Amino acid sequence: MKDIITVFVQDCPTNDKQAPVLIEGLPGIGHVGKLVAEHLIHELQATKVAEVFSTYFPPQALVEENGVARLCNNELYRYEDEHGTLLILVGDFQSTTNEGHYHLSHEYVRMAVELGVRRIYTLGGYGVGNFVEEPRVIGVVNDAALCETVKEAGAVFEVSEPGAGIIGAAGLMIGFAKMHNIEGICLMGETSGYLVDPKAATAVLHALSHLIQRPIDVDHLTKRAEEMEAEIAQFLETNSTKSDDELTYIG
Amino acid sequence: MKDIITVFVQDCPTNDKQAPVLIEGLPGIGHVGKLVAEHLIHELQATKVAEVFSTYFPPQALVEENGVARLCNNELYRYEDEHGTLLILVGDFQSTTNEGHYHLSHEYVRMAVELGVRRIYTLGGYGVGNFVEEPRVIGVVNDAALCETVKEAGAVFEVSEPGAGIIGAAGLMIGFAKMHNIEGICLMGETSGYLVDPKAATAVLHALSHLIQRPIDVDHLTKRAEEMEAEIAQFLETNSTKSDDELTYIG
Amino acid sequence: MKDIITVFVQDCPTNDKQAPVLIEGLPGIGHVGKLVAEHLIHELQATKVAEVFSTYFPPQALVEENGVARLCNNELYRYEDEHGTLLILVGDFQSTTNEGHYHLSHEYVRMAVELGVRRIYTLGGYGVGNFVEEPRVIGVVNDAALCETVKEAGAVFEVSEPGAGIIGAAGLMIGFAKMHNIEGICLMGETSGYLVDPKAATAVLHALSHLIQRPIDVDHLTKRAEEMEAEIAQFLETNSTKSDDELTYIG
Amino acid sequence: MKDIITVFVQDCPTNDKQAPVLIEGLPGIGHVGKLVAEHLIHELQATKVAEVFSTYFPPQALVEENGVARLCNNELYRYEDEHGTLLILVGDFQSTTNEGHYHLSHEYVRMAVELGVRRIYTLGGYGVGNFVEEPRVIGVVNDAALCETVKEAGAVFEVSEPGAGIIGAAGLMIGFAKMHNIEGICLMGETSGYLVDPKAATAVLHALSHLIQRPIDVDHLTKRAEEMEAEIAQFLETNSTKSDDELTYIG
Repeated sequence: MKDIITVFVQDCPTNDKQAPVLIEGLPGIGHVGKLVAEHLIHELQATKVAEVFSTYFPPQALVEENGVARLCNNELYRYEDEHGTLLILVGDFQSTTNEGHYHLSHEYVRMAVELGVRRIYTLGGYGVGNFVEEPRVIGVVNDAALCETVKEAGAVFEVSEPGAGIIGAAGLMIGFAKMHNIEGICLMGETSGYLVDPKAATAVLHALSHLIQRPIDVDHLTKRAEEMEAEIAQFLETNSTKSDDELTYIG
Repeated sequence: MKDIITVFVQDCPTNDKQAPVLIEGLPGIGHVGKLVAEHLIHELQATKVAEVFSTYFPPQALVEENGVARLCNNELYRYEDEHGTLLILVGDFQSTTNEGHYHLSHEYVRMAVELGVRRIYTLGGYGVGNFVEEPRVIGVVNDAALCETVKEAGAVFEVSEPGAGIIGAAGLMIGFAKMHNIEGICLMGETSGYLVDPKAATAVLHALSHLIQRPIDVDHLTKRAEEMEAEIAQFLETNSTKSDDELTYIG
Repeated sequence: MKDIITVFVQDCPTNDKQAPVLIEGLPGIGHVGKLVAEHLIHELQATKVAEVFSTYFPPQALVEENGVARLCNNELYRYEDEHGTLLILVGDFQSTTNEGHYHLSHEYVRMAVELGVRRIYTLGGYGVGNFVEEPRVIGVVNDAALCETVKEAGAVFEVSEPGAGIIGAAGLMIGFAKMHNIEGICLMGETSGYLVDPKAATAVLHALSHLIQRPIDVDHLTKRAEEMEAEIAQFLETNSTKSDDELTYIG
Repeated sequence: MKDIITVFVQDCPTNDKQAPVLIEGLPGIGHVGKLVAEHLIHELQATKVAEVFSTYFPPQALVEENGVARLCNNELYRYEDEHGTLLILVGDFQSTTNEGHYHLSHEYVRMAVELGVRRIYTLGGYGVGNFVEEPRVIGVVNDAALCETVKEAGAVFEVSEPGAGIIGAAGLMIGFAKMHNIEGICLMGETSGYLVDPKAATAVLHALSHLIQRPIDVDHLTKRAEEMEAEIAQFLETNSTKSDDELTYIG
């Protein structure tokens, strides 16, 4: 098989009037980006248009409520209104290897180019190691000309922050976007990093909502965070009852 | 060399009257799947039709009783009667890497497509961490329409179980099968996971036997488990007398 | 994406009168090579001509002072005067994998061949585990005929030293250079290996300066070492406040 | 670069009268195989005919006595007399990865096929974890018909031994040889596994000498073992004074 397989499950027309925007919310610190992106998909009732399968994901099938298994994947959703098109990238995992991060992020940006995307937002948490009462949103861009816009949306810039760089899709996608003259904005909500963090997600959503010029209701965000937390807890609990070796070979 | 090499050692005609069934029983938790599959091959006197070699297997030759070495491999056996054709996949190992699990499972399903397979059963253990007096068989399918059939054979469905997903070939094969419109059923026998578990295997065999509509004698299953246990013990003992470094370079 | 992407951002003519020299100063022990190479670029006001991106680099974007992200990369600079052309290779990282070291070093030498390079200098530290008052420069060459030249520049040769070989680009590049009949000289300054070491860098710079027949002012080398030390400290500090898992998924 | 590069440095004609024999003695337990093979090359004054470079070797250059660096490699030597041709494979390392073991062993056998080889001997140590006064030689073959010949040379067969299989080139090469109808014999000298073991090497050399029908003087084997031990000690000592991180970036 190819290392990455992208399958379009729906026609995905690009909006001629207004070039589309891509929002990335894959799993990461505090699951902030994923929480915001899944909330968006739910609130906007966006439609799934594509699935991405990859040998860079963990080699396992996930089991849904009804006992039906499916391969791990990442998914692209689409929403269109009078302001233009929003594409939203969510999924189960980022990558199990370093080179997988590169290849997958490159593929997401390749899809963005193909779909006429003009701006990419990558969402994430910014781990500070302790509980944050009023989380700020740290902005990073791929072009200095974007700084002002991001500040107007309430995000802040810190000199050379994050110092460790931005690991994974959130960083690589805006890096690759630059090569294709696509605007890239990364929004990171301050979080302890220990739990699914609805406060950090709310902060990121406020800034994003301002930037994409759509009001998004945050009412259900906390409830969604609790559900996500429960799912992750179950996943971890099940895994912790098995030795490493067993995990390798459930099959 | 290519990463996966499949060699057909016998002609493997597909049965026109009734599309063939593929049963996967590679090593895993409690060696449940492997025990059931090897028992089937023995009881039905199935014929070996193909061998699969791969760089994803451990880089070693295995030595048989007579001092003759052979490369690690997985093997496909074939049995045909008036009900149709059964293909049975067994072998030495699953994969040493994550991507290997994907590539190998993809290859097994590719072979299934080529051989006209209409349904794939993947067999395994379901580790519960403690001894189970009367192991249940947990079912997972790749299409909700299959649930009823699986329940009739005595397997049960639990909401979103296993929570950690199904790792390795047992999960990936039914996932890939779905993409090719091949029915996929995974049967997992509850097991402590510590030993080769003939009780879990008996439970899985009962359900499988019902589903493939062939009565299979379980008399020798316990004896076979003891032999398999002895082989594994010898393998582990030999390995534990060597440091990691030595293991890397017996050669 | 390809595993290595080389992008020329400027025309890079080769000097007909005198074949160019390539100087490699990627990160390594005591950051000696990087310090010397960056100092050279600054003092000579060399021009960036090419960027190398690779899946073998860490999967992250680095953030510059103004909040603008860029992909990790290595860069080739060019300086030309009446003595000929100097090409200088610097960058963020070497490689995250063994095979990446090979593929990247091979690519650098391929570029050297393409640009008509006749001699490659690789620079590095030679870790001795304790503070060195007057660091020596250890020389290694890819052709015995070069030994005399290197000794004249003040470097010394020790029998079969370094005994562990030369790991990474500094060793591989002169090895590959040999296959293309390009002269290769590795200069390693003795260093404790614990900090960015301007003393070791000064010693290497003295020898290199003699070999490339250009006097280079060492005045700002210590200041540059302090700045580099501060950057690395910030990088490490930020990373140490995060668990391994979080690092995997800032995104 | 390709993952494996084979360079013939001399013409390597095959002997029409008697098909050539290939002897593999790469590094391994107790360095038994390497010691025997290097002794053979020295005693027979065999000529180097090919070099193999690979991204599967450690990413480093080795430094020879005169301060000249060379890439890690494996080498093929050739010796011809009235009995036919002997090819001897020796080298610095086996492989840093599992798949590298497969690809390299496959390449060695491919070369063997190309050079008309009819029998491959792979040599190694058989680690028993304690000092052995009179080491036996354990034989493993790739065809039961070879057992008698190997016994006549003084080697013994144990039921299903080694139980852990034969890891690395010694096992894989006779496995791949089988696919090309090349006879494969693995000879393993019992050794503690802790040091370069001239006693185990002497035992293996006795059996091999009988099988290839050439008397080989063992006088200098002990001296050669001491030299090899000293080289390895220096390599390890140098490495142990450096942290893992430093080792990654000497360059």
